[in-house]
Amino acid sequence: MAPAEPNAPPFRPKGEIPHFAEERVGWRGYIEWEKYPEKKKQVAEILKRYDFPDPPEFQLVPLPKTNPVLTGERWKQYHYACGLGYMPQFSWETVLKEKAEDMIHVLQFPYNGEAPGERLISKELTDNKDHFVRNHGGIPDIDADAFTLDITGAVNNPRRFTLAELQDEKVFPRQTNIVTLQCSGTRRIEQIHEYPGDGDELINAPWGEGAISTARWTGVSLKKVIKACGGLKDGADNIEFFGADTYFKKGQVYNYVVSVPWRKVKVNEVLLAWEMNGQPLPKIHGYPLRALVYGYIGARSTKWLYEVRAITRPSAAPVQRKEYLYYTPQIGKQNAKYSNGFSIQDMPVSSAIISPKDMDQIIHDGKISLAGWAYSGGGHWPVRVEVSGDGGSVWYEVPYQNMSTKYYHAWRTWKMDLPVDAEGWLEFCVRTWDNAMNTQPTFVRSAWNWDLHVTSSAHRVKIYSINRSRPTTAARLKQIEERGESILPITLPLHFDLETDEEYEAEMERRAWRDPLE
Amino acid sequence: MAPAEPNAPPFRPKGEIPHFAEERVGWRGYIEWEKYPEKKKQVAEILKRYDFPDPPEFQLVPLPKTNPVLTGERWKQYHYACGLGYMPQFSWETVLKEKAEDMIHVLQFPYNGEAPGERLISKELTDNKDHFVRNHGGIPDIDADAFTLDITGAVNNPRRFTLAELQDEKVFPRQTNIVTLQCSGTRRIEQIHEYPGDGDELINAPWGEGAISTARWTGVSLKKVIKACGGLKDGADNIEFFGADTYFKKGQVYNYVVSVPWRKVKVNEVLLAWEMNGQPLPKIHGYPLRALVYGYIGARSTKWLYEVRAITRPSAAPVQRKEYLYYTPQIGKQNAKYSNGFSIQDMPVSSAIISPKDMDQIIHDGKISLAGWAYSGGGHWPVRVEVSGDGGSVWYEVPYQNMSTKYYHAWRTWKMDLPVDAEGWLEFCVRTWDNAMNTQPTFVRSAWNWDLHVTSSAHRVKIYSINRSRPTTAARLKQIEERGESILPITLPLHFDLETDEEYEAEMERRAWRDPLE
Repeated sequence: MAPAEPNAPPFRPKGEIPHFAEERVGWRGYIEWEKYPEKKKQVAEILKRYDFPDPPEFQLVPLPKTNPVLTGERWKQYHYACGLGYMPQFSWETVLKEKAEDMIHVLQFPYNGEAPGERLISKELTDNKDHFVRNHGGIPDIDADAFTLDITGAVNNPRRFTLAELQDEKVFPRQTNIVTLQCSGTRRIEQIHEYPGDGDELINAPWGEGAISTARWTGVSLKKVIKACGGLKDGADNIEFFGADTYFKKGQVYNYVVSVPWRKVKVNEVLLAWEMNGQPLPKIHGYPLRALVYGYIGARSTKWLYEVRAITRPSAAPVQRKEYLYYTPQIGKQNAKYSNGFSIQDMPVSSAIISPKDMDQIIHDGKISLAGWAYSGGGHWPVRVEVSGDGGSVWYEVPYQNMSTKYYHAWRTWKMDLPVDAEGWLEFCVRTWDNAMNTQPTFVRSAWNWDLHVTSSAHRVKIYSINRSRPTTAARLKQIEERGESILPITLPLHFDLETDEEYEAEMERRAWRDPLE
Repeated sequence: MAPAEPNAPPFRPKGEIPHFAEERVGWRGYIEWEKYPEKKKQVAEILKRYDFPDPPEFQLVPLPKTNPVLTGERWKQYHYACGLGYMPQFSWETVLKEKAEDMIHVLQFPYNGEAPGERLISKELTDNKDHFVRNHGGIPDIDADAFTLDITGAVNNPRRFTLAELQDEKVFPRQTNIVTLQCSGTRRIEQIHEYPGDGDELINAPWGEGAISTARWTGVSLKKVIKACGGLKDGADNIEFFGADTYFKKGQVYNYVVSVPWRKVKVNEVLLAWEMNGQPLPKIHGYPLRALVYGYIGARSTKWLYEVRAITRPSAAPVQRKEYLYYTPQIGKQNAKYSNGFSIQDMPVSSAIISPKDMDQIIHDGKISLAGWAYSGGGHWPVRVEVSGDGGSVWYEVPYQNMSTKYYHAWRTWKMDLPVDAEGWLEFCVRTWDNAMNTQPTFVRSAWNWDLHVTSSAHRVKIYSINRSRPTTAARLKQIEERGESILPITLPLHFDLETDEEYEAEMERRAWRDPLE
């Protein structure tokens, strides 16, 4: 484990640290909680003994420049207190093994990380090591041979499948799709910078533009597996997913549990996936089996999926009922409930400029190259991307030749040479139109919400433009170059006079000096 | 001297440190440069030996939370190199002696500081210890008995006055006026936060709303003193002021020299002042004599004024010619000259909300109290102050009963109970109309300029509103209070469930749950 933040309080056990046995041989790090109310009660009692550290204040103060940006001490301490202290350690080792070296570690534990933007959008499909990760707990380490999936609840013939059975093509046809997963926290940093919001127990991580990635996923449609169980009983209308990771909420312990409507399963948009870009799932992405819910918030695509249960009503589990809610801006700490936000499932149209970066200072000859991604969930796709060099007054369409392939369930990357005459600070922005003519809210404030989810407003970056095609600018640049100096960063003063006294006085004569004559 | 920034490079002399004798007995810290071209040349040679540290990068990174905010190492080193190393020391001691203990030291040397906002606007007249200070060099220490003022240049009878002669009421009638001084850097931090600009050699200090103050000034009108010198010669149309402080620009040394048009002097709006609020000028404010130019940028109100010279054209000295220029936003490091910005003299209409503060989180019962200042230069005065609770859509007029006295040359403080129904993050703003119906630009961007001067756009603060007159909010606050917790800061998570399962399910029944039935 990397060193904790300097101010992180040390963990001091209070009373005996319990030992909770792993549920099954070959399933390391999987403690079953949902089947054992007495174990859950025992954990609640243990957690009550502690005054866990609040999440660090990172919204009302500048973000640390560290990597990991945040360490997640509180979440680690939950695990320490329950005798699961090995989970943060194993999870971090898995990050170092499975993810790219230069990932931006937004939160160390539970692990949240995104790849550097330029590489992320350099290909239509994201390399597995670059795919963003938003975990909610530690990473279970499960042997494929020992793995099973239980189909339970309101199905006519509940049963258990081994991985081999699910992979038997004589029984279940394979399904492969290119699908984008997106965390509802994508671009959250913009909401935080504008207006801080819910600190949440499980940190609302300060994501940049990279909590979105695309892969070719292979597995079996959940619909077919439920059919193999004789289909649903009457009244069942939601499907609950159980992940083997351990989750905490308001002093209680859980497994990771969410749900999706049956309607979504029925159209073959829920995959039980074991392959990611032609390779077995990495452990950090849910090995050996995960759900993949197309066009939905990533949080429903449950990793380390060990049980699928048919139910009536959406899941009452905390991740479904109490998290990932979208509030109207009048709702906040003073009045937020679980029922007065709506549940984030389908993702809206959104996009981002990855290059150039916010605050870049660019020397150019009248054109600046932009590149980024565009996405719309729920089976919609980006049909038009538009960029503006003036904060959203004049919009230029990105030529379709510069956009990657369209898919029902994936992003499109794009690039564009934007004509730029103006100099100084400009506000570049992007908006995307999907095939249903949905477009993005105009400003961060237009869609700010208490839990800081779904930053889908037109993405804006500030760019300082230095247009070398202007003679006066070219002359100044030459002058700086001849002195062996640089114009960048712009905030460093120049060391020479900007004009000679003679030039000044001649120019002031032409301008009739400072004040009127009469 | 307070400890330097940890990263400040130590000063290492290169060659012999010169000794420049003080110009006159009883004038400590006054080195005359303008009369001795050979001394200036000598300093230029000395300065060339050094590679002085660039000003610290504070615009592209978060501001340090220190007080002093910035220390001004470069400016100190200029003084060390010229054998004036005692100036930073004496100046800082004078700050500690003459200014309030809780001043916000924006820049340690040359000293720039502002008083905490609430106290600043608590009275129409600012206490001397609270009056903002924007110095450009060290503080000379001049005996009143030894002091003289020379009137030179294009006057018919140039002559020298002692302080006693200027104060002789039989010769010169006293003039007393209530006058606001404002630095053109007031509220600069807003421009920096939005878009960084010129780093400048003499740091463009990150001022808040307090680089403005008001005092009752007493002295003699400069017009009368010039008349006593037989008036101006033909063709003289500007008046140059010489201050005893030492100033540096582009590797050259100067005294502090600026100018104003004769027209301004002629209407008795330039005072030679020796009293500030009925007391002798503090050393830090120009003891024993300073200029006071009503309605102009503070930079013209030269401190430690020892010479006044009648000239043709505005002063060619660097503070007048090369500083305090107002550029159009297309002008920046790539093309800024001295002739393509205009010279800041008269100050425009502007205002600020001092209370509440940006990012405050306020529990209220439907009204929030606002207070601030409003000002217009050039002999205009604020006739109407308007505040908005919604970012500038609906404006409320501040009742005239809540505004301080109007003066031709001073600010008005104001307060207002603003009706606030909405909750969550609101954007409060203020704009002022002066008697010529000038009002303020709408956004920081509307008036952003490369040298970051005159932030006169409508002042905006973000406020998180918690309206206790709403029953659901009152209930939540009671619940928090009963648990001995606090709702503040809002970014800390609540430790209890926001709704029971029973309440949730009943409410969801009324809302017909999450998805459509058909």
